[in-house]
Order: sequence, then C-alpha cells, then structure tokens
Amino acid sequence: MNDKVRWLRNKIKSMNLDAMIVSNPVNIKYLTGIDAEGIFILARKENFFITDGRFIESVNSLLTIDDEIIVEDSRGLSQEDRENLFLFCENVGFEENYVTYADYKRYMYQYKINNLTETENIIEKPRSIKDEEEIKNITKACNITDGCFEYLLNYIKIGMTEIQIAEAIERYFKINGAKELAFDTIVASGPNSSMPHAVPTTRKIESGDVITIDMGCKYNGYCSDMTRTIFVGKVDDEVRKVYELVLKNQLQTIREMREGAVCKNISKMVINDFEINGYDLIHGLGHSVGMEIHEIPTLSSNSEVILKQNMIITDEPGIYIPGKFGIRIEDTVIVGKTIGVPLTKSTKEITIIKVK
Amino acid sequence: MNDKVRWLRNKIKSMNLDAMIVSNPVNIKYLTGIDAEGIFILARKENFFITDGRFIESVNSLLTIDDEIIVEDSRGLSQEDRENLFLFCENVGFEENYVTYADYKRYMYQYKINNLTETENIIEKPRSIKDEEEIKNITKACNITDGCFEYLLNYIKIGMTEIQIAEAIERYFKINGAKELAFDTIVASGPNSSMPHAVPTTRKIESGDVITIDMGCKYNGYCSDMTRTIFVGKVDDEVRKVYELVLKNQLQTIREMREGAVCKNISKMVINDFEINGYDLIHGLGHSVGMEIHEIPTLSSNSEVILKQNMIITDEPGIYIPGKFGIRIEDTVIVGKTIGVPLTKSTKEITIIKVK
Repeated sequence: MNDKVRWLRNKIKSMNLDAMIVSNPVNIKYLTGIDAEGIFILARKENFFITDGRFIESVNSLLTIDDEIIVEDSRGLSQEDRENLFLFCENVGFEENYVTYADYKRYMYQYKINNLTETENIIEKPRSIKDEEEIKNITKACNITDGCFEYLLNYIKIGMTEIQIAEAIERYFKINGAKELAFDTIVASGPNSSMPHAVPTTRKIESGDVITIDMGCKYNGYCSDMTRTIFVGKVDDEVRKVYELVLKNQLQTIREMREGAVCKNISKMVINDFEINGYDLIHGLGHSVGMEIHEIPTLSSNSEVILKQNMIITDEPGIYIPGKFGIRIEDTVIVGKTIGVPLTKSTKEITIIKVK
Repeated sequence: MNDKVRWLRNKIKSMNLDAMIVSNPVNIKYLTGIDAEGIFILARKENFFITDGRFIESVNSLLTIDDEIIVEDSRGLSQEDRENLFLFCENVGFEENYVTYADYKRYMYQYKINNLTETENIIEKPRSIKDEEEIKNITKACNITDGCFEYLLNYIKIGMTEIQIAEAIERYFKINGAKELAFDTIVASGPNSSMPHAVPTTRKIESGDVITIDMGCKYNGYCSDMTRTIFVGKVDDEVRKVYELVLKNQLQTIREMREGAVCKNISKMVINDFEINGYDLIHGLGHSVGMEIHEIPTLSSNSEVILKQNMIITDEPGIYIPGKFGIRIEDTVIVGKTIGVPLTKSTKEITIIKVK
C-alpha cells in the first residue's frame, strides 16, 4: 500500500469511519495513480477499485501486488458481493462535494450502507500542500506559460482576432511540451476586457486596445495559470491609474502569501484598498492550482484557512469598468515561510505593443 | 420567454412542482443559451439566473427583454432575498443526477426550501430528441470525422507513434472547422487495442498491427463519435473472424435503431450473438450524443427506453482479447421511422494499410 492510501486509512479511522468510498477521479488518481472510471473503496480489511470492462485490463497492468488494491468488474458483482464489501461497517465516508444526490442514494441502496458520512474535503486538504514532484511539474507549466507570453509580445499585431491569438497560445503550449490547456484561454480586447470570463471572439485588435490574456497549460497533469493585461499603441491615464492600483495590490498579495497568513485577511486587504479608491473586487482574489485548475483553499473573504508552506495559489486581483475596459494581473504563487514566490515570472511593467 | 423554458414551466406544473432549480450548465445552455457559471431558477412568477461578477456583463449582453430572465449577482443577494425567491413554494424540483449532496443541502438551507424534489432527467429527456438545427450540427461534425478518417488512411505509416496519430487527428479537426475534440482521442495499436479505453502511447506502429481509432469532434457545440479498427500489412484469420462478427452485429444494430424499438432488446441481441460465438460484450452497446458526448438514452441491457425518431445514438459493439487485440466498430446513428441511418459514413470494409 502506498503512503497516501495508508495515510487515508489512518485518517478515516481517526474520524470513526469504518470504510470510505472515493468517487472523485482526480482524488483516485492522486491516491493510486489509477486514471479510469470507477470508485475506490477503502473497506475494513482491503482496498478495492470497482470499474467496468472498458478499464479492467489497463488498471490491472498499472497496479502491482504492493498496491494492495483488488480490481473488480462491477458487472461481475452480485448484490451479495456488494453488501459484503461493507460488512460490519457502521459509518462509511463519502465525498459530499463530488457525489451527486442520486449517487448518494444509490450507494446506500446498492451497498446497504446505514450511515454515509460527509468527509469535508478529507483528500483535497492534503492535496493543497504540494510535494517536490508536484512543485516541479507546476513550475515547468509556469515556465512554458512565461515563454508563451514572451512569444505573444512579438506575435500580436493590429488586425488579428482574439481567436487567432488564443489559437497561437494553444499551439505554443503543444510545441513546448504541454499537452493540454489548463482551462479555456481568455483573450479579451478593447471593451471585451471588462468581462472577466470573456470568450475569445472574432473582434480584431485595434490601436488603443487593452488586451487581457488569461492562460495556462498542463505539464505532467499539473496546471499553471497566469494573466497579463497589455496595451496596443498607448495607455490612457484612467487605464494607467487602474493598472497601477491593481498591480500594487497584486504585489502586496504576493508578499502576504506566507505560512500562517489567513486567506480572508489577504482578500479583505485588497477589497478595502479597492473600495478606498472607488472600485470593487467582483471575483475571488485567488484559487489553488494543482491537478485541477480550481482547488482549495481559495483567497476569498470568508475563508478561515491558514496558509501553509508549499501551497500553490493564484493571486489575481482585477478591476472591470463595464463597457469600457478591464485590468487583471495574475500569477501562480507558491506560499513560502516568510513571503510568497511567484512561479510565473513574466513582466508586470506596463507593456505596450508597438503600432507600426 | 422561449419555447423551451415555457415548455419546462408547464412540465413542472404538471408534476406538482412550484419551482425548479436548474444547475447543470449544459441544461442551462440548452434552455437559455447562457454559457456561464450560475443557477437558473424557474420561480412562481419569474425566471432568474443567479451568477457572479465574472459573468454578469456577458450574460446581460446576451439576453433580451423577450427572454424574461432576471440576472442577479449572488453577492448582492441577502438571506431574505434568497428566501423570497421561493416564497409560497412547497415543492421545488432539482437535478438529482447533477447536484452534489453538499449542494443539495446548501440549497435547502440557503433558500429555505422544504421539499427539494427529484426530477428524473426532466430536461435530458427532451434533449434526447434532436431538432433540425441540432441534427445539422451533429451531421457536420460527423462529416468532418469522416474526412479525418480518409486523411488518416494516407497519413499513417509504420514507425509513427500512437500519440503522433492522435495529434494529427486533432490538427485535422481544427483546420476543418471543429474547434474542440468531443472526447480524448483513442489510438490503440497492437496489443494496446485490447483495452477499450486505451490512452495513446509512444508505441510505434508495426507491420501486422491492429489499430483501433476512436475519435470525435464538436461542431457548433455538438459532438460526433466514430471508431474504426484498421490493419497494417495483413490480417490474421482469428482477427478477421472477430472483425466479421463485430461488423455483422454493428450493421444489424443500425437496422434495429428505429422508432419503437426498446434499447435493452437491441443490446441483448448483440450480447446473445457474441455469447453464441464465445465472446463477451464488456461495455455498453451505445450512448446518445448531442451537446455532451454521453447523453441518455443508452443502448444497455437494462434500459427500458423506447427509441424515438431523431434520437442520435452511437452503435459500437466491440470484442477484446486481453493482451492480444481488440476490434470495435462505431457509428453515430440517427433513429429513423423504420431503420437507423448512420451519420458517420466511413468504410467498414476490412481496411489494410500498405507496408511499403
């Protein structure tokens, strides 16, 4: 049995659970390396992975005797087999933030479980602190993202569409070793930049545009996430003022991202400074990244979570003036002992693309 | 209010529901066109879309007064506002197959709802019958997929890796107007082909290989899905025998996919014929496709669903000999009055790639 599964078995015992059903495929992959549809069951005496015919062979070829995981084809299980899995189990943990209400009822019925008990992100919490290998993968994804930004500064020209730029980003990632996007790329130009989640359109880049580019890739299954807002030809005074306010808060947040800091306090610091200046922070200040692009903890104004070293969290304040423009600056940041350290390192100086 | 929302309002009334919360983003997009995070609420007198600051502006720019949908920023809603949304509502429907157990509890608490009632795929069921526009989009996605297969027959050469071929497929889709993959492409060669859900590897194509290619793209948000198993240089007698058995059942299934047929009967027909010949159908015979790659109904041995005209469902029997080889042949098929009609039309004759 590997360390993570052993840890989880001890953890559930300490919570007075006799067994646990792990349903979230990301958690299953994190715990076991298995990348297949199915559920992972920590039963009283054994670990099971219940899957179906499509995955049996590939899962069996991945696992060794040391994994101590018994692979079962769900079609081969009788009602009695299912009930035996949880024999003498009074309390069985499940992932209430992943399992649908229908599956919750199905588990109780199919496996004859009396008490299905919520486990409050029992696996997501340790996932929030990244180990050496994970930090290496995220750092590499961030490096590729930085390289892409440098490439874009020469690539973007007046007359190109947002979609063209988004496609160039995806191509760059692929060529440079990142197989997948971490999320759908945002390229939002001119007034589109005032929508934090804009989808790239056929709008053409014009002189005077603000362009917000929010991009990230996956390297070895781990995500990066970076936003830069750049300018075409010139920067208006109002825009510059907003940019400097966002940047000041973004830098201050990095400094605050240290072991022991409380998420909500960091978030409130930015909310307050924006308010003093007459603006509003209309989305969260940041979210953790890892195997998924949105993980816990988040830098939100109601999160009591205390930061720990080697958490990796985005720092992405933004100000949006509907119909006019928006500014967002984002880094993927690793929490350190005394200060945060950005893993994305692209310039945050005001960057103006030349109009030839 | 559009026809789909009006239909749903009448439908929930007939089910004795006073209101409904729609949480599945695909269902929200199907009903309203809105492509954003949030929940769509059919309340007693009005329709609401509750979202957050990241999406407010883009949603508001999409909707017109005719949509009769009020957009609210969830941050601006007090506890009292939330409770007022469901005032005088005794029974409120929700999507038990999408909503997590944690959200189910949160809805009850946050909106003070007494009876949250399961709605049993109330929206997925009408989604299973495609309208003219949807059929057009899926047909186009199938055409692009056929074009890709033809391209591959000249492209694939000995020494190429499975990953190289999968990348060529993605490039072809992009260049030919399909922005996204419908699912992760499967290219499984030699012994890898015996795993129905194999992930492309660096294994190089060799003479004598069986290659199973399962691919699909999205056109205007709608999916295609097709599998072909092809051969390099030669086909062994055992392999040929299995291929012919799979193909016979695949063609018979197309003929059975007519209005009035019962899903489980079609599935059992194939299971029986495989068994008579000493083989096993280790996965479902087919699944509906549309905005999502897996929709209902499915061609499974326990589905009592009766097929209706203009359902679009895959037909994908397969036989897998662990460690040796696998054969799967799949089309996206539209259910007709008297017979099914494949929308993917690539050849199913035994296709042998020449070794030069």
